[in-house]
Amino acid sequence: MNNTVINLGLAGLGTVGSGLVKIIQENNDWIVRRLGKTLKVKTIMVRDLDKPRNVVPSADTTFTTSIEDLLGDPQIDIIVELAGGIEFPRQLITQALERGKSVVTANKALLAEHGPELFELAAAKGVGLYYEASVAGGIPIVQTLKESLAGNRIKTLTGILNGTANFIMSEMSEKGEDFSTVLAKAQDKGYAEADPTLDIEGIDAAHKLVVLIRLAYGQDFPLERLIIEGISKVDQFDISLAREFGYRVKLLAQVRDKSGLLQGGVYPALLRQDHILAKVDGPFNAILLEGNAVGPVMLYGQGAGDLPTGSAVLADIMALARTDSAPNNTGFLEARLPQAQILAPERTVFRHYFRFTVLDRPGVMASIAGVMGEHNISIAQVVQRQCAPEAGVPIVFLSHSAQMNNVSAALETIKKFSFVLAPPVHYRII
Amino acid sequence: MNNTVINLGLAGLGTVGSGLVKIIQENNDWIVRRLGKTLKVKTIMVRDLDKPRNVVPSADTTFTTSIEDLLGDPQIDIIVELAGGIEFPRQLITQALERGKSVVTANKALLAEHGPELFELAAAKGVGLYYEASVAGGIPIVQTLKESLAGNRIKTLTGILNGTANFIMSEMSEKGEDFSTVLAKAQDKGYAEADPTLDIEGIDAAHKLVVLIRLAYGQDFPLERLIIEGISKVDQFDISLAREFGYRVKLLAQVRDKSGLLQGGVYPALLRQDHILAKVDGPFNAILLEGNAVGPVMLYGQGAGDLPTGSAVLADIMALARTDSAPNNTGFLEARLPQAQILAPERTVFRHYFRFTVLDRPGVMASIAGVMGEHNISIAQVVQRQCAPEAGVPIVFLSHSAQMNNVSAALETIKKFSFVLAPPVHYRII
Repeated sequence: MNNTVINLGLAGLGTVGSGLVKIIQENNDWIVRRLGKTLKVKTIMVRDLDKPRNVVPSADTTFTTSIEDLLGDPQIDIIVELAGGIEFPRQLITQALERGKSVVTANKALLAEHGPELFELAAAKGVGLYYEASVAGGIPIVQTLKESLAGNRIKTLTGILNGTANFIMSEMSEKGEDFSTVLAKAQDKGYAEADPTLDIEGIDAAHKLVVLIRLAYGQDFPLERLIIEGISKVDQFDISLAREFGYRVKLLAQVRDKSGLLQGGVYPALLRQDHILAKVDGPFNAILLEGNAVGPVMLYGQGAGDLPTGSAVLADIMALARTDSAPNNTGFLEARLPQAQILAPERTVFRHYFRFTVLDRPGVMASIAGVMGEHNISIAQVVQRQCAPEAGVPIVFLSHSAQMNNVSAALETIKKFSFVLAPPVHYRII
Repeated sequence: MNNTVINLGLAGLGTVGSGLVKIIQENNDWIVRRLGKTLKVKTIMVRDLDKPRNVVPSADTTFTTSIEDLLGDPQIDIIVELAGGIEFPRQLITQALERGKSVVTANKALLAEHGPELFELAAAKGVGLYYEASVAGGIPIVQTLKESLAGNRIKTLTGILNGTANFIMSEMSEKGEDFSTVLAKAQDKGYAEADPTLDIEGIDAAHKLVVLIRLAYGQDFPLERLIIEGISKVDQFDISLAREFGYRVKLLAQVRDKSGLLQGGVYPALLRQDHILAKVDGPFNAILLEGNAVGPVMLYGQGAGDLPTGSAVLADIMALARTDSAPNNTGFLEARLPQAQILAPERTVFRHYFRFTVLDRPGVMASIAGVMGEHNISIAQVVQRQCAPEAGVPIVFLSHSAQMNNVSAALETIKKFSFVLAPPVHYRII
């Protein structure tokens, strides 16, 4: 962009929008020193003009409730969509791209569900659609995949992408408290929303994973084809047992390339306590990936918050303001990326953790181990615990690598045994 | 660049050069998919045409010993300098920039010592001088500072930037072995060079720190004004004692912004064992930084090796090949960056670790503690150990924050006490 003032049209002045405005104000001289251009928040579209704000943009910023004041203003160079939701942002971004305006957004849900058509439209119009802030807050993973590691084929990518879920798992592990206790605490502290479904059921992390898969592999992986398992059923008992085995339980988002087929999913999983991701605690996010040239690389930082996420939005704005080249939206040249070649979930292979609650009587261990053997599940470690006999005795198995359809079949059989007193518990081990 | 084939002229076919050639061969289709252009290693300049190679470039690659075959070939778009050393690369890069050719280099020593004039020349000619591979191998820290975190003011940056030194410190800590034993082992494994001076004396890390300070602060920090302390005198005894206190000893490269003054240095220092950098072991590198918007961010990966470093070189080549815009060499617009405003080393403030070897007699502790008090050094923790009395008794003090000139003055006084049997040992605590 050649102008010396870059005019921004901002939709939404919530947490991230306020953070962005604050950073632009505070670091203005610094931005000019790097960019040679001034960023100006020209217009902010909000739902309610009278709502009190915790940030005061400059005196010549216009507030509006009209989308046309953003889209129809020829002086606005970049539309910054921080409104949240799906339908309104979708309309706003579509119309902005159609009118040849570049867009910066933090909206992972929108990009997961409607990314393909939005990127296709941006390519057709030759404008930017940037989204560093949509995944892992201030961590520069989008830029890293799109450019810095662009020459690498990514073998695997594993992320802790939801700070709320990670905070809950960390607290459960550190404090020995139950899921519901910790969730209530997280809601008190503002780490979890009143309706925490998106965070704790893995859906938010799944949205982000779809965005990352697109960047890493240049393929569109439909959200509905991801394995998605949340943390709301994670039992404190399994966290303690895993700890004794030397593991932590984390909500992971993961994609792996198995001979050209992708397997992708979000699930709570056991990680060795000396695994670098096992140390990512509380509201932090991290992404560990393995490239065929670079090897393992990890990026770590704050996954949410006004200033960290605002920093990522600002990076996109500066990148668009700096360049005269064609925007690099997805990291690939195709206007429409191919659909992912997907390895069916039942064919995925992991090591596994199983816990069975059984009657304490002879032959139980042999029966369970027998079923495992019949299904090609090789056992690496077994622990049986003494508990109050009326509640049943827990038996924990850690397996070697086993295919998921064998695991499902074995669990189906085992849970029908009369000595099995509760639904079996199962986690993947990474 | 508009051509569909990007011709590279490569100087040097050692570890990194071979890695680059391998990656371009192996990931060629992938690169074309992202770039729409083919990368071709057109010419390779080597010292000895007859030396056997562990990589075979394509049949139409020309080998030469003549610099003019790189510089004078109008078809060569990018000069890739991977020759090592200072004088030859300096000439090569200077002449390439003068002739309007963009350059990619991994040469941290050159950029630390001659960066200012080279970047000034590149700016004058409007060509690229890119150097992702010069710091921390495959870790995309250059791009991250130049672009992703460009809107942040960096408060502090702490890096483990030398894999050899980090391997030695990790092994000393894990195995309890002495410096010289571990160094010999590192040399055997090829992790350390026959002359390990640059690595173990902190000079290589200092070169990289100069490059990072330029990127983070837009200031030229002269190498000779960095504090540089190596690891060759680190005693196994202090590593064990630090471990007991809950610390690891690491060779750190660090810059901090203290109210507009920069303090920069490379030194072995104590890190709490739960500090995220304390877990960066062996040949890995990591950079932890704190931005005024993004907060803490860490990047972690392999700091050396043919493919990781080759991956970083490739990222630069792809970035130059992709853009039609003015290159973004330093992240700042000034052709000549200002000299750093430097906080004098004696005015820097740290917490400190001291070990004194003293005669076991009354009053010793009081005398040392008295000197500390006189110099405003507040003591946080003291441990005295029973040892063979003829060798003296070790006393360890951990201090609260204290200014370096006070520390130096106190050490000067204490070492003159007749009961002090050996030179005092001193480390910073981060």
